[in-house]
Amino acid sequence: MDVGLLYSGGKDSTLAALLLEPLCEVTLVCCSFGITDDVEHAVAAAEAVALPARQVELEPAMADEAIEQMVADGYPRNGIQLVHEHALETVAGLEYDAIADGTRRDDRVPTVDRSLAQSLEDRFEVAHLAPLAGFGRGAIDDLVAQELAVETGPSAAIPKGDYETELRARIKDEYGEETVAEIFPEHVQSRVTGRKTD
Amino acid sequence: MDVGLLYSGGKDSTLAALLLEPLCEVTLVCCSFGITDDVEHAVAAAEAVALPARQVELEPAMADEAIEQMVADGYPRNGIQLVHEHALETVAGLEYDAIADGTRRDDRVPTVDRSLAQSLEDRFEVAHLAPLAGFGRGAIDDLVAQELAVETGPSAAIPKGDYETELRARIKDEYGEETVAEIFPEHVQSRVTGRKTD
Repeated sequence: MDVGLLYSGGKDSTLAALLLEPLCEVTLVCCSFGITDDVEHAVAAAEAVALPARQVELEPAMADEAIEQMVADGYPRNGIQLVHEHALETVAGLEYDAIADGTRRDDRVPTVDRSLAQSLEDRFEVAHLAPLAGFGRGAIDDLVAQELAVETGPSAAIPKGDYETELRARIKDEYGEETVAEIFPEHVQSRVTGRKTD
Repeated sequence: MDVGLLYSGGKDSTLAALLLEPLCEVTLVCCSFGITDDVEHAVAAAEAVALPARQVELEPAMADEAIEQMVADGYPRNGIQLVHEHALETVAGLEYDAIADGTRRDDRVPTVDRSLAQSLEDRFEVAHLAPLAGFGRGAIDDLVAQELAVETGPSAAIPKGDYETELRARIKDEYGEETVAEIFPEHVQSRVTGRKTD
């Protein structure tokens, strides 16, 4: 089964890849709006864990829509969800048997509930796999500690190859640093730098 | 991570084991009320896929409670859910770091929703893993076809090592064959007979 996995270079999407790897042909799909070069961090993480990767461009108009939503809301949740669904639909339109992501049981955003998964499967004739949908935070942390070398730090210091990094950059340009700080609470990010067995 | 996986010898719990196998120490836990010897079918399937297995006894009183529920309802759902939760709690009380099962995204019963999983984790200080919680029916069928040799047939002809087989046997003894036919709709069962790569 050929699987295109949405990949940010973070620990969740990397662990999802490790779970699928023995049973599927996994390609790490690094999505970008082209706002910054940060997708390179995802590509570098893919190389560090020795899994095949590719870059895929998202619709720039969707970045604008997500940013409008986040600025209007004052928090990022709905905007991030919008972009995640757009990325899933984009990859679902490619040549894979299945698309996948690193969404977890306890995640608040992005989420792919059963009805969204089934809708993607019906509309694009592709399976949706969420290998971490049945894993809680504790188990994920334990498995990551066992399998992966990870760098952690505040969002601003650990540039990742995900949508958030690009959206933050554009919000900073258009609305200023204060708006970024208002919308995005400070939280710890992770970036994978290799496998433990390396 | 030492994982005790509830195991029936069917394709779902076996595929769940294959997903966990590369990252965890998986033990297939074959639960039985001791009503029949059907747990042997689960033990045989575990041997056929070359994974370590053990037998664990469930509380006979719970079988009676589940049967009363099913006879009163006229369908098996609530009784099966009751037994599944009892089995999870029983295995959670053993020495594992995590318990797991083969529940799938699209299953109606048994289900382990997020609040039940978190409740188990909090009460027993153990993680709950549902490796197939983010997989739909189509993807599971494809992966099973790729990885496993499987025998399929109607429930009565494919004796499995699961609760249903034992509960059906006791209902037949106590209420007769017609009650079994009333409660359990005819459906196709699967039993794993080995790995495809064997």
